[in-house]
Amino acid sequence: MAAPVNPPRGMRDFLPAEKARRERILSVIRAAYRDHGFDEIETPVMEDSARLHAGLGGDNEKLAFGVLKRGLTRETIAAAREPLDLVDLGLRFDLTVPLARFYATHRAELPSVFRAIQIAPVWRAERPQKGRFRQFVQCDIDILGEPGALAEIELITATADVLDRLGLRECTIRINDRRILSRLLAAWGVPAEVREPALVTLDKLDKIGVDGVVAELAEREFGDAELIRATLHELAALGDGWSLLDGEAPAWLDGGVYRELLELRDAIPSARLVFSPDLVRGMGYYTGTIFEVAHPDLPYSLGGGGRYDGMIGRFLGTEVPAVGFSLGFERLVELVDLPLESAADAVALLHDGAAPAALARLKADLVRAGHRVRLAKRAKTVKTQLEQLAGEGYTRFAFVGPDTQAAADLELRDLT
Amino acid sequence: MAAPVNPPRGMRDFLPAEKARRERILSVIRAAYRDHGFDEIETPVMEDSARLHAGLGGDNEKLAFGVLKRGLTRETIAAAREPLDLVDLGLRFDLTVPLARFYATHRAELPSVFRAIQIAPVWRAERPQKGRFRQFVQCDIDILGEPGALAEIELITATADVLDRLGLRECTIRINDRRILSRLLAAWGVPAEVREPALVTLDKLDKIGVDGVVAELAEREFGDAELIRATLHELAALGDGWSLLDGEAPAWLDGGVYRELLELRDAIPSARLVFSPDLVRGMGYYTGTIFEVAHPDLPYSLGGGGRYDGMIGRFLGTEVPAVGFSLGFERLVELVDLPLESAADAVALLHDGAAPAALARLKADLVRAGHRVRLAKRAKTVKTQLEQLAGEGYTRFAFVGPDTQAAADLELRDLT
Repeated sequence: MAAPVNPPRGMRDFLPAEKARRERILSVIRAAYRDHGFDEIETPVMEDSARLHAGLGGDNEKLAFGVLKRGLTRETIAAAREPLDLVDLGLRFDLTVPLARFYATHRAELPSVFRAIQIAPVWRAERPQKGRFRQFVQCDIDILGEPGALAEIELITATADVLDRLGLRECTIRINDRRILSRLLAAWGVPAEVREPALVTLDKLDKIGVDGVVAELAEREFGDAELIRATLHELAALGDGWSLLDGEAPAWLDGGVYRELLELRDAIPSARLVFSPDLVRGMGYYTGTIFEVAHPDLPYSLGGGGRYDGMIGRFLGTEVPAVGFSLGFERLVELVDLPLESAADAVALLHDGAAPAALARLKADLVRAGHRVRLAKRAKTVKTQLEQLAGEGYTRFAFVGPDTQAAADLELRDLT
Repeated sequence: MAAPVNPPRGMRDFLPAEKARRERILSVIRAAYRDHGFDEIETPVMEDSARLHAGLGGDNEKLAFGVLKRGLTRETIAAAREPLDLVDLGLRFDLTVPLARFYATHRAELPSVFRAIQIAPVWRAERPQKGRFRQFVQCDIDILGEPGALAEIELITATADVLDRLGLRECTIRINDRRILSRLLAAWGVPAEVREPALVTLDKLDKIGVDGVVAELAEREFGDAELIRATLHELAALGDGWSLLDGEAPAWLDGGVYRELLELRDAIPSARLVFSPDLVRGMGYYTGTIFEVAHPDLPYSLGGGGRYDGMIGRFLGTEVPAVGFSLGFERLVELVDLPLESAADAVALLHDGAAPAALARLKADLVRAGHRVRLAKRAKTVKTQLEQLAGEGYTRFAFVGPDTQAAADLELRDLT
């Protein structure tokens, strides 16, 4: 057992400094969402396997960790034909499937328009690579029960406020609508029955570029390659789709939907909303608006979401309008540098092995007085020790001497 | 898919009110531990299956949820001889095995005396019954690297402070030492080689009573039944073992260890420490002090812990002294009734379907001014709606009328 020990592949430990940093950022996100009238809920990390594999999770379903059935015997194992026969539960791969299940379970107890916060880990058996983890935290807000644009406005406003509070004012929020994409594909001559696979290709635009998308669509004979190339170049040159109508409106632009997006834009206080007619967002369940958070220096999005009016109905048997916005916490953590909460009252007591009872009394006195207190045996090189303590957030220290009887005897000095 | 939907057996959803209550209690626990100089860490929910089944988890190992290996085929399934052949990871069943693994991984980056906080869920495939869950939260603090009693003193003092802050001043902390138990069993004539199973029986004292314990030990011919009965009745009558020495010291009481416990007691500010020579605590890895939190009205403990000096060495190859204290969060939650954090600034805006842009602007203004804001469509029976909003923590409300242009136009009224 003395072999090297590591956390499971693709999963991470968090040491005190990093854990404190993460919790601080999470508390800012949570507080912003709460201010915007959202309420946090929690579901178990596992869901029934059948529910996780019901076709709502797209490609992520294949990445679900399965949980072995209890009580299997050699005989029941031998009778299994495929891995899914051996599991009855699985770890959630997103927070949307659990939310749909939660809503179906508890609808009667929830307000008619339910604004949910979920801040929790999800698990995917991704091929480990830089920046991809097998356990990672998502921060989701969803509004269930509101069919109108007010839902999108509240979601995007709350998300923009989170980005502001995290100091990420340079981020923009790209927006599009699946109905605009449908018209665009139709204009390109992509047959209706292959629109989903064509969208999968278009979704790779960031990674493979215009030429890559055109080549992949052409190979499968999806639409008019030259027209597609021209449109994509035009959109790339445009930058922000709001200027599309400065000239003549393109034939593929659904005027009604476009006006809805314009109204959204104008209703969102301070949000930097960019119209991106080529934005796809991967999930097949989106039915209307889709959006994502873009950072000027990053090739990937920091989060995204959209309207998925059909999905809750799959669990509930009744249609429920729904729209959600998910922030990728692990990507935010890399960008955000918030000051830790004031540790002005953190005191380190350096002792030379004084009597435990005396140390305990000193410590209890200081804790009672509102300090955070760490006892530490005085090291040989006090300078290094003090630097370490400062690095861990301690701001003052005192030596405990043989004459120190009470907290009043301590001479507290600044650590910084 | 319109069938009844529930969370997996033995696992729970938390609706907003309960989630807020839980998070509030957790934040009090976390703050108390931090004040006492402990630092929070986090490990992945999964560990290597071999590590979870290395014999350190006692009976809990059998309750571990296993995670199916990825990439199994019909052939590899057919080659499996038992369930453990099919899994490579498992969900942690406690926070102690992950801590030992974490410490082995990161020892070089941690202070020489490391005070860890872990507040996190664990999973056990328990037979579902009232009060037993398959996913539940534990709150653990551990001190690694401190061989002396100062570690016990800091742990117990911090735990007592948590209980105070939660308003559970009626709780006591029972303490004993495995070395005292060994002497007691020897005095009873229990052979050294069956001490572990004899302890398992003694550990059931709360559940099966003196007669039950005596009968179970007698049946297996473990020691002198009449002597055991007499001692257990004597201890029960005594209530608090500190009074044991008021008369003649019993022969089985290890004077040296007893004096160590007395010193502990006297060093712990304000803790209500009760000496319980019949206290066992189930885990086989304890080597010295053991303790648990007792509530006068409850037949079960709210938490417990002890010294486990041998365990970290199993992972690391070097001995590391260790002592820990774990609070059972689910049992605390049932007892604690903390006021929610002040919601004096939570405002509900009731509207009749005003323009989304106008509503969004009003909401954003109020959020910017420091309020928590919920938009709600005015219901037919406003009285019921206002009661619900008050129940959800909203304290003020205003109607949004056709003339409401800005937050200044709102007439905020108290909800309570």
